[in-house]
Amino acid sequence: MPTTARWAATLTLTATAVCGPLTGTALAAPGNAPSGLYAPSALVLTVGHGHSAAGVTPERAVTLNCAPTASGTHPAATQACAELQGADGDFDALTVRDGVVCTKQFDPVVVTVDGVWQGKRVSYERTFANECVKSSYGTTVFTF
Amino acid sequence: MPTTARWAATLTLTATAVCGPLTGTALAAPGNAPSGLYAPSALVLTVGHGHSAAGVTPERAVTLNCAPTASGTHPAATQACAELQGADGDFDALTVRDGVVCTKQFDPVVVTVDGVWQGKRVSYERTFANECVKSSYGTTVFTF
Repeated sequence: MPTTARWAATLTLTATAVCGPLTGTALAAPGNAPSGLYAPSALVLTVGHGHSAAGVTPERAVTLNCAPTASGTHPAATQACAELQGADGDFDALTVRDGVVCTKQFDPVVVTVDGVWQGKRVSYERTFANECVKSSYGTTVFTF
Repeated sequence: MPTTARWAATLTLTATAVCGPLTGTALAAPGNAPSGLYAPSALVLTVGHGHSAAGVTPERAVTLNCAPTASGTHPAATQACAELQGADGDFDALTVRDGVVCTKQFDPVVVTVDGVWQGKRVSYERTFANECVKSSYGTTVFTF
């Protein structure tokens, strides 16, 4: 399944399948949260050399929390959270920065993102032709 | 194919397929890491009310980094990392603490753990009869 479709499917499943005995659904709806509560946003991002996450050993992994405040081992947590807010949590919406020039060397890297974004589960993976290309998407999210 | 042979074949395939261009395979092998490098351990733990992760909205989510040092939004990151080290990263090995008494009320909660432990991907979920039972397993890992 293409990454975009998988992402859309994940969001749809999460949104529709959400659950019987759960009383705190509003937690997952930003803006609906009762005072003092917030929808959690906590992610682990990994990167490894290879074609797909299934066969790749993560070489680096960082955490990124975006609620209630930005933190984590991501080297630019505050900016990364702002960027994801701007993209409404859609990792596929992060586009190439202007002015970045990368070689066409094919040495693929796979980025994975797992966890929760504003109360919805995230399971994302994306393959880039090389490290330079990876880090040229968005401003900081994939730069770790 | 006998299980042992299949297992050996899987290991071989993994070892050879993982990393054409990857030079840092040793990163994933704790103890083998070159000086200054380490196998990443970065996790997101969530909890929500319900029977299985597929139908549950995460109500809380915390991050836990255990390498190179303990950090994260987990309320007891240092102890949780020590506990996981003691269990060799096996979440099922965390057993009930002595002296904890919980009601038998059935109000199930699901804990999920995603990310990387010592360079290996983790995708774990476990359902407990209620919040008290959840927090009685291990000492701190599930207490968030």
